[in-house]
Amino acid sequence: MNKVYLTRRENFCASHRLHEPSLSDQQNADLYGYCNWKNGHGHNYEIFVTVCGNPDPKTGMIINLVDLKKMIHEVIINRVDHRHLNFDVDFLRGINPTAENLVVVFWNELKKVVGNLLYEVKLQETENNVVVYRGE
Amino acid sequence: MNKVYLTRRENFCASHRLHEPSLSDQQNADLYGYCNWKNGHGHNYEIFVTVCGNPDPKTGMIINLVDLKKMIHEVIINRVDHRHLNFDVDFLRGINPTAENLVVVFWNELKKVVGNLLYEVKLQETENNVVVYRGE
Amino acid sequence: MNKVYLTRRENFCASHRLHEPSLSDQQNADLYGYCNWKNGHGHNYEIFVTVCGNPDPKTGMIINLVDLKKMIHEVIINRVDHRHLNFDVDFLRGINPTAENLVVVFWNELKKVVGNLLYEVKLQETENNVVVYRGE
Amino acid sequence: MNKVYLTRRENFCASHRLHEPSLSDQQNADLYGYCNWKNGHGHNYEIFVTVCGNPDPKTGMIINLVDLKKMIHEVIINRVDHRHLNFDVDFLRGINPTAENLVVVFWNELKKVVGNLLYEVKLQETENNVVVYRGE
Amino acid sequence: MNKVYLTRRENFCASHRLHEPSLSDQQNADLYGYCNWKNGHGHNYEIFVTVCGNPDPKTGMIINLVDLKKMIHEVIINRVDHRHLNFDVDFLRGINPTAENLVVVFWNELKKVVGNLLYEVKLQETENNVVVYRGE
Amino acid sequence: MNKVYLTRRENFCASHRLHEPSLSDQQNADLYGYCNWKNGHGHNYEIFVTVCGNPDPKTGMIINLVDLKKMIHEVIINRVDHRHLNFDVDFLRGINPTAENLVVVFWNELKKVVGNLLYEVKLQETENNVVVYRGE
Repeated sequence: MNKVYLTRRENFCASHRLHEPSLSDQQNADLYGYCNWKNGHGHNYEIFVTVCGNPDPKTGMIINLVDLKKMIHEVIINRVDHRHLNFDVDFLRGINPTAENLVVVFWNELKKVVGNLLYEVKLQETENNVVVYRGE
Repeated sequence: MNKVYLTRRENFCASHRLHEPSLSDQQNADLYGYCNWKNGHGHNYEIFVTVCGNPDPKTGMIINLVDLKKMIHEVIINRVDHRHLNFDVDFLRGINPTAENLVVVFWNELKKVVGNLLYEVKLQETENNVVVYRGE
Repeated sequence: MNKVYLTRRENFCASHRLHEPSLSDQQNADLYGYCNWKNGHGHNYEIFVTVCGNPDPKTGMIINLVDLKKMIHEVIINRVDHRHLNFDVDFLRGINPTAENLVVVFWNELKKVVGNLLYEVKLQETENNVVVYRGE
Repeated sequence: MNKVYLTRRENFCASHRLHEPSLSDQQNADLYGYCNWKNGHGHNYEIFVTVCGNPDPKTGMIINLVDLKKMIHEVIINRVDHRHLNFDVDFLRGINPTAENLVVVFWNELKKVVGNLLYEVKLQETENNVVVYRGE
Repeated sequence: MNKVYLTRRENFCASHRLHEPSLSDQQNADLYGYCNWKNGHGHNYEIFVTVCGNPDPKTGMIINLVDLKKMIHEVIINRVDHRHLNFDVDFLRGINPTAENLVVVFWNELKKVVGNLLYEVKLQETENNVVVYRGE
Repeated sequence: MNKVYLTRRENFCASHRLHEPSLSDQQNADLYGYCNWKNGHGHNYEIFVTVCGNPDPKTGMIINLVDLKKMIHEVIINRVDHRHLNFDVDFLRGINPTAENLVVVFWNELKKVVGNLLYEVKLQETENNVVVYRGE
């Protein structure tokens, strides 16, 4: 059998603010610096969703990219694109939107629809900062 | 004489919302679509500042890049990075932050310190959207 | 007045073959090398469409990006994406699809819908080869 | 010992068409969408070949990059660049050229010359679609 | 627990020459080709440092990116940026600066300050050549 | 007639040091900072050569890209790649290798072989620093 990894990139633009309510304002400022500034800031996020499996001998595909793209849009892009991640997104309610927290939640949402084929979710916040989660 | 163009790239992360107060909510929604959504969104902006001039025969430089970088940081980056462009930036007060409007205002701010060497300001909002202004 | 340049990037995948029917097979082979090979090859093309104008003082926009994107898709992307440029595209009938020829024809198609705002069309064939046309 | 991974990027331009002969035309159209259109389309493919090994204490190299580059050109690039992957390439005869199928076949070809040092082959079809194979 | 990988990119410009003193000049020339030319050459290196750990449930962070960036600058960037890697860098004394050797030494330096969170160091020498080391 | 601009990208790796002999060591240090450090540093330079002309109605080309590529290699790449720009390059003898000075000299060398078709030379030193010269 051939274990192939297939990655689809999508992107979205969103705003967020790092703020942990159980900490004082001073602690938040010390911890998150300018990421804690009151009115938030934003990013052009890129999300890379990787599935892993054996290509179907008939179709030569692990998953139809049309379907994978649709799933990513339905469970992630349509709900976060042009949104404020602290206020507008139901499945992020109560989550402090650090890149680490986001990538885990995105994995959980994708897992529901992609299932066992899901191998990895990568989230690029800026050209210098990237996080990866594999459900481990 | 040799007319050389020198470009310095810097970047910043910010949030914004397209909204024109003199229009109704419905008009704003129709005009700006998801860019008008209430809580705003954000971008990793890249700004490219181009100066044009004759390299000094002694130094081989149009302008010292250390100085150019410092100017861009002082008049642009330090004031917009990790800010909400609708609320937090004094020189953007009352400006609806479309890319077109931003690039003109950024030019005006840079002109004050770079002076006649300033040739062009380019602002990349996403990998698909870019604006350029040359003070014309 | 403020003359601002706004560029929108879109992309498409297509195949093509450089072949000039009025030349002999040998002449074609000598002229175009491996770009003339019988079954053609292909590229991930990127097209950058630039409009130039004064941002509307009310909307802060030269043109609504939603409209510009729609125009580019209607007159270019929908007709060339996943197509063979020598065989499948009506407005390229009889055109030898060199990058230089393509960019001029794309300009002509875009001009019909974008009108006088159209400033430049850039076509990137590979990361090393780019052509630009401004209707001059 | 130090296990270091060394990756070399090369690229090629090719055309292809997704089509499975054992399926009906309608099934092919449903399955592959515009990737099944009759005259095919093309891509600027990027291939990343990774070897893994202990750098030689004398030379500081896992493999001489000159040799690795030469191998990639001899067994992959020279045979697929500017070719139609469905018709022109001997080692792809009878292979439906999905990215998944291609990356496995490329691995097999590279394995013959790179040997046990070969760790991974990555194939980027577009900026949004990538596949990886590690011989598992 | 959630095992998340967080990567920070930094870059530096440096010159180097591949030369192994225990080999003859002819052997060096044969082995390293133009990388052995007497006066050396240089690169814009990019270094990607990946930490792996469970995000702190309170802060949502594996490590504060401000701290990680500071560590990378203190132990790597400040010591190699705008330097000649064969002559100017204490911790590279006696090291033939192939990419493979560099990435191992950079790992060792980073390990001292990042500790057990350190998962991977990636060093990009050119857009075509990349090495990775994970301390194995 | 159709005025089309065609750009070819090539790249080279080189080392250099900014140093103006007619200035004192202290003045050099003040002026160029770490670019003046004694043993120099280096870059992955990218050079973009643009020709401008009317595509030949027969061939659909301004210039044969094979020829343009060959010219760029003969007069630039072969002479600067993997070289130290202060010591190894005949046509740079006595030139302080700032980006501004380099781009003018590269233009002059290219002009001799490309002739009147030559429109622009762009030199990218890092992802943040670019210079352009058009022979004006």
